[in-house]
Amino acid sequence: PSKGAESMETNLRIGIRIISKMPSIIAAFDRMRNGKDIIPPNNSLGHAANFLYMLKGELPDEEDARTLDVALILHEDHGLNASTFASMVTASTLSDMYSAIVSGIGTLKGPLHGGANERVLKMLNEIGKPEKAEKYIMNAIAEHRKIMGFGHRVYKAYDPRARILKDFAEKISKKRRDMTLIQIGEKIEKVMIRELSKKGIFPNVDFYSGIVYHFLGIPTDIFTPIFAMSRVVGWVSHIIEYTQANRIFRPRGIYNGPIDVEYVPIEERG
Amino acid sequence: PSKGAESMETNLRIGIRIISKMPSIIAAFDRMRNGKDIIPPNNSLGHAANFLYMLKGELPDEEDARTLDVALILHEDHGLNASTFASMVTASTLSDMYSAIVSGIGTLKGPLHGGANERVLKMLNEIGKPEKAEKYIMNAIAEHRKIMGFGHRVYKAYDPRARILKDFAEKISKKRRDMTLIQIGEKIEKVMIRELSKKGIFPNVDFYSGIVYHFLGIPTDIFTPIFAMSRVVGWVSHIIEYTQANRIFRPRGIYNGPIDVEYVPIEERG
Repeated sequence: PSKGAESMETNLRIGIRIISKMPSIIAAFDRMRNGKDIIPPNNSLGHAANFLYMLKGELPDEEDARTLDVALILHEDHGLNASTFASMVTASTLSDMYSAIVSGIGTLKGPLHGGANERVLKMLNEIGKPEKAEKYIMNAIAEHRKIMGFGHRVYKAYDPRARILKDFAEKISKKRRDMTLIQIGEKIEKVMIRELSKKGIFPNVDFYSGIVYHFLGIPTDIFTPIFAMSRVVGWVSHIIEYTQANRIFRPRGIYNGPIDVEYVPIEERG
Repeated sequence: PSKGAESMETNLRIGIRIISKMPSIIAAFDRMRNGKDIIPPNNSLGHAANFLYMLKGELPDEEDARTLDVALILHEDHGLNASTFASMVTASTLSDMYSAIVSGIGTLKGPLHGGANERVLKMLNEIGKPEKAEKYIMNAIAEHRKIMGFGHRVYKAYDPRARILKDFAEKISKKRRDMTLIQIGEKIEKVMIRELSKKGIFPNVDFYSGIVYHFLGIPTDIFTPIFAMSRVVGWVSHIIEYTQANRIFRPRGIYNGPIDVEYVPIEERG
């Protein structure tokens, strides 16, 4: 493929197509597996509202649509996180946009990356009651178990995205008249900050997003696809920016094994 | 998924499965598109011989099988090249081996990475005669066109893999009684080294591998799949090694745009 302006335009066109089609694909998948008819997009709706409409078959109210919109915006981009970086490495060989996005999706699906908010919700449900949260967390800390939704490679303070999502999680919990999950979450947060904030461990974006998605009626096992449909905006943007002044990614490894060892023919090795 | 020994064993098992099935898949693809019956693997044959057998439906002679075997070995691994690195980034989120290998394949397919030997062969055929090679190359250098099969991010000297493949390319050309391609290749090499070796530009592994594959009767458009079926050994090995002491890849970007600019609300931007 050619480089420069023409390729940038092609990539932009393909990128916008992918961004706009991902909500349709995810909603169609969820409806098909439930034996329901696929709902085509309603072009009068915004991106977030359209997704909820295609997923559930009814128009969301303005507040719910806005809640999902904010969650999607907060997840869209976050520097050179692993999935964005993988998509850039793929694009740097001048491979096509689709292959690069597939690398991003495959990377996001790892439990250390896109799978965290699903596991937070699982933990909240497992704890079940706010008054059980402290003991659960203190045990987990004592056993050196990882608490999902806390700590971040970049942020050593309260993740600003989590602050915003916490407000939305509280609002939607009140609206749905079910405060259990948010109360468990707040208790966990309090104990974790008391115990681990001195190590730079605070809530990250995954901690409150699961509650938000739950009350928006989104099935838990498509939280990661929704993360992908949001983050694809960042993938496409970074790919387009990077390939404008492309340099193939090719880090050097440093050998740190034994040296000056004797050569033993393979037949004679133990 | 769990980390440590169990996960290492699982990844090794899946990795070996993928390595062993890729030749079957590529050969089956080529036969299907030509309306031929798929040939199941012959378990008495080695990896390379088996591929040629499944692709062409007849047992290769020992020399041809050895030639492909050497070409596959030379392509198996080469440090943290872009495709290997992409597969490692994907695996670092503890995503599954299949997703990591898909990232590797998508990255290898870029024309700057896996596509080079196919383009070398196209260039040799375009030149057509050894006596036309010098003029073609001198023109290309004058017009700053990239000559495929030369130069390497790591090697600033003659790629040792190219030295070995050149011998095999010569031998198989003699055996097939068709010296045109190898003579064009040698002339190009001579001119390129005369003109550009002072800049550290020498033949790389892609320069002679196309001739070798051509005389093995492999269709040009599956050169990159064959590269993938060889390089997958390196992908699997690096993934398994890396995830033993895993750290998610997450580089930091450095902002180098304008600073101290005035904020303009989005509605008021031009």
